[in-house]
Amino acid sequence: MIGDEILSGRTQDKNVAQVALWLNMQGIRLTEVRVVADDMELIGRAVVELKAGNDYLFTTGGIGPTHDDITVDAIARALDVEVVIHPKARKALEDYYTTRGGLTDARLRMARVPDGAELIENRMSGAPGIRMGNIFILAGVPHIAGLMLEALSNQLEGGRPMLSRTIGCWVAESEVADLLREVEAANAGSQIGSYPFFQTGKVGANFVVRSIDAGTVDSCIAAIGSGLILLGYEPVADGILLPAS
Amino acid sequence: MIGDEILSGRTQDKNVAQVALWLNMQGIRLTEVRVVADDMELIGRAVVELKAGNDYLFTTGGIGPTHDDITVDAIARALDVEVVIHPKARKALEDYYTTRGGLTDARLRMARVPDGAELIENRMSGAPGIRMGNIFILAGVPHIAGLMLEALSNQLEGGRPMLSRTIGCWVAESEVADLLREVEAANAGSQIGSYPFFQTGKVGANFVVRSIDAGTVDSCIAAIGSGLILLGYEPVADGILLPAS
Repeated sequence: MIGDEILSGRTQDKNVAQVALWLNMQGIRLTEVRVVADDMELIGRAVVELKAGNDYLFTTGGIGPTHDDITVDAIARALDVEVVIHPKARKALEDYYTTRGGLTDARLRMARVPDGAELIENRMSGAPGIRMGNIFILAGVPHIAGLMLEALSNQLEGGRPMLSRTIGCWVAESEVADLLREVEAANAGSQIGSYPFFQTGKVGANFVVRSIDAGTVDSCIAAIGSGLILLGYEPVADGILLPAS
Repeated sequence: MIGDEILSGRTQDKNVAQVALWLNMQGIRLTEVRVVADDMELIGRAVVELKAGNDYLFTTGGIGPTHDDITVDAIARALDVEVVIHPKARKALEDYYTTRGGLTDARLRMARVPDGAELIENRMSGAPGIRMGNIFILAGVPHIAGLMLEALSNQLEGGRPMLSRTIGCWVAESEVADLLREVEAANAGSQIGSYPFFQTGKVGANFVVRSIDAGTVDSCIAAIGSGLILLGYEPVADGILLPAS
């Protein structure tokens, strides 16, 4: 994610959750997120580091027409390639702006790509996303980033999606720490997360079981559920009891 | 930020904006955010890298009583110190759990700190945050993280807070790209961000001016405002026209 607006706290980010959920549907695991400032060097450094250690890298933000949109320049410099005008992007922008005052220099900025890049369709505003090798450069406005993800759906090589089920309970998570650890240990390939909440003086927690295997998820949910009942609690499976915040 | 729940998309993060806004009030600039998985090595690597390049490092998440809470262990290992029970934290937990079933082994986990650490008060649930040198280890539950930040308010050395004002307008940002660039160039120490939005077929943008100098902010807002009026638009200063998403 690229953008001073996130780091200043002005804008509540929505792209992390959006990209994470989309990746999961593609069977691709999100391993790390970084939010960096609108700064050539900081963007470049993050891109080089993250590109090296991962199959795919997605960026959001900084590809608009104004002076603070420097993502394309930063990535091109980090990859040591030129920035060029992509002819198809220019055409898409020309078409889009025909009835909207024509293609100005500022608008033409949105056709600039690292040399060698392909485009990612944006059927909303003409300005495309960009694919450069394993780097996917998306818009920062969440619903446009969402359209670009939609255009990429089922295009990337992924594994099996991570499945999850949640079981919630009005219980202090410290009461069930042993139960959770034992269930996770007994079910290879499972991950169990415990997410507490507090409301009107009561404590509760949602326990989220994740695995690529549906049977493993179901076994864990069943084991946590019966464990909670044995301890005298009333768990609620498959309904998040309360938002985790 | 430490947590599989953010990377899976299950939980919409709220701590980035919360920490960012609080830091700004302390006159401290947030330069980077990373979200990493509940994994000893990944947490450790991020902590070492971020601690080295910054005055302060804040973590959220992974300090509860359950098996997936490994932040303290990961940070201690990264710093090459032992994990110890902090006597004051043990006392706070004993007091808190006196009327809540007593201090179990799982609950005592929340008194574990890297050797040499101090505590950050948490007047809500007894389990404190942790300060280890320039690393501040906070809870993941947003309102508890908020209480810990409150306890740290005015404790850290900061500079002058970054000031900002916003001017919104129903205009395509590409129409005013030159204006924004010129105003920023003419006002040393200013940063101008352009955040477009789309609603019911209309395009608009909020222009956010940031500077540590109030006069600079005001000059930029005035210059953008009169520039927009000259172009035939009707800007709205000091009211965000619409949410940026």
